[in-house]
Amino acid sequence: MTASATIEFKTHGDGDIVNLTERIQTAVGESGIRDGIVTVCAIGSTAAVTTIEYEPGLKRDLPALMQRLIPAGVPYEHDATWGDGNGYAHLRSALIGTSFTTAVESGRAVLGTWQQIVFLEFDNRPRSRQVRVQLVGE
Amino acid sequence: MTASATIEFKTHGDGDIVNLTERIQTAVGESGIRDGIVTVCAIGSTAAVTTIEYEPGLKRDLPALMQRLIPAGVPYEHDATWGDGNGYAHLRSALIGTSFTTAVESGRAVLGTWQQIVFLEFDNRPRSRQVRVQLVGE
Amino acid sequence: MTASATIEFKTHGDGDIVNLTERIQTAVGESGIRDGIVTVCAIGSTAAVTTIEYEPGLKRDLPALMQRLIPAGVPYEHDATWGDGNGYAHLRSALIGTSFTTAVESGRAVLGTWQQIVFLEFDNRPRSRQVRVQLVGE
Repeated sequence: MTASATIEFKTHGDGDIVNLTERIQTAVGESGIRDGIVTVCAIGSTAAVTTIEYEPGLKRDLPALMQRLIPAGVPYEHDATWGDGNGYAHLRSALIGTSFTTAVESGRAVLGTWQQIVFLEFDNRPRSRQVRVQLVGE
Repeated sequence: MTASATIEFKTHGDGDIVNLTERIQTAVGESGIRDGIVTVCAIGSTAAVTTIEYEPGLKRDLPALMQRLIPAGVPYEHDATWGDGNGYAHLRSALIGTSFTTAVESGRAVLGTWQQIVFLEFDNRPRSRQVRVQLVGE
Repeated sequence: MTASATIEFKTHGDGDIVNLTERIQTAVGESGIRDGIVTVCAIGSTAAVTTIEYEPGLKRDLPALMQRLIPAGVPYEHDATWGDGNGYAHLRSALIGTSFTTAVESGRAVLGTWQQIVFLEFDNRPRSRQVRVQLVGE
């Protein structure tokens, strides 16, 4: 059995972290699949999906880390190709990854208590975003 | 068809790397699923799951890399929220990721010869940990 | 229902980025699975699989980033174990990850327009590589 849902939302641009956990749990619950696997995929190449404790401190720490490891505002070859100035965003996306997969048990995605599924916006402008939630199981 | 198992173990705190490969292969073998997908998920937000060659040199190199990229012992906003001093551990977890997925073929998880599935403990104290192994296939 | 395919190719060593997207879409299309999940797994411990916009600028930016975060040409404990000088490659692989999973919809892997699935070669010599494409769905 398979099921899918699309979650749509708007972001404020680089540094925005969107907590998708409740919308994903709703999609899993409505899918009718009780046991199996759920994959959460960002559709795009300037964002990421990962897990983190969604609290105010880490919401500042994670963008600061990204800026330290892969700074915006310095030249990248990508920017010479397109002139859109978001080379840093593509690199962050490739580093962290655009997909997260976990188990489904009793109609819920399996996560730790302080482990939320988050969408990380890296692009240098507000975006309308889609995340695909795909389930396989029974 | 779906199947799952939970692997439980204790860690020694930050820097501990636990080779889960044999326990995962046993769980896959006992599942009755011969072909499909297996997902290995750390339950928690201060650890990670990835693959690496599990040998003594890399067991020292990987914690050293983590300390260089996301040092412990420096202030993070997270630590101001909770006072637990493990902000670095949450950030490392979000960067590396808490889940690994691969194919199952003939009742075995598909891996390279020197590619082991490992649990990375980042938290600043010994922990009791659970990893979920979830299969979907036939 | 499950299906799988193996993609084989040669790389030129560290810095080589192989765009697997079309071969993966062909494998998905030929699998007969219309809806479900596809996992793409690098078989090995000195390479990675991720998504990025496959364009000439980022093809230079991503190896440059890797060299900045985890340089080749400096000593790692791994190199003392085996003497093969590719400790940096194992660490990059563990950081980025060796597997990517996304949804399958209407017989296609779900991706953004500028989001390609790529294989990242990190090893310090040309390699013959295998990537497993595994599907579960209906």
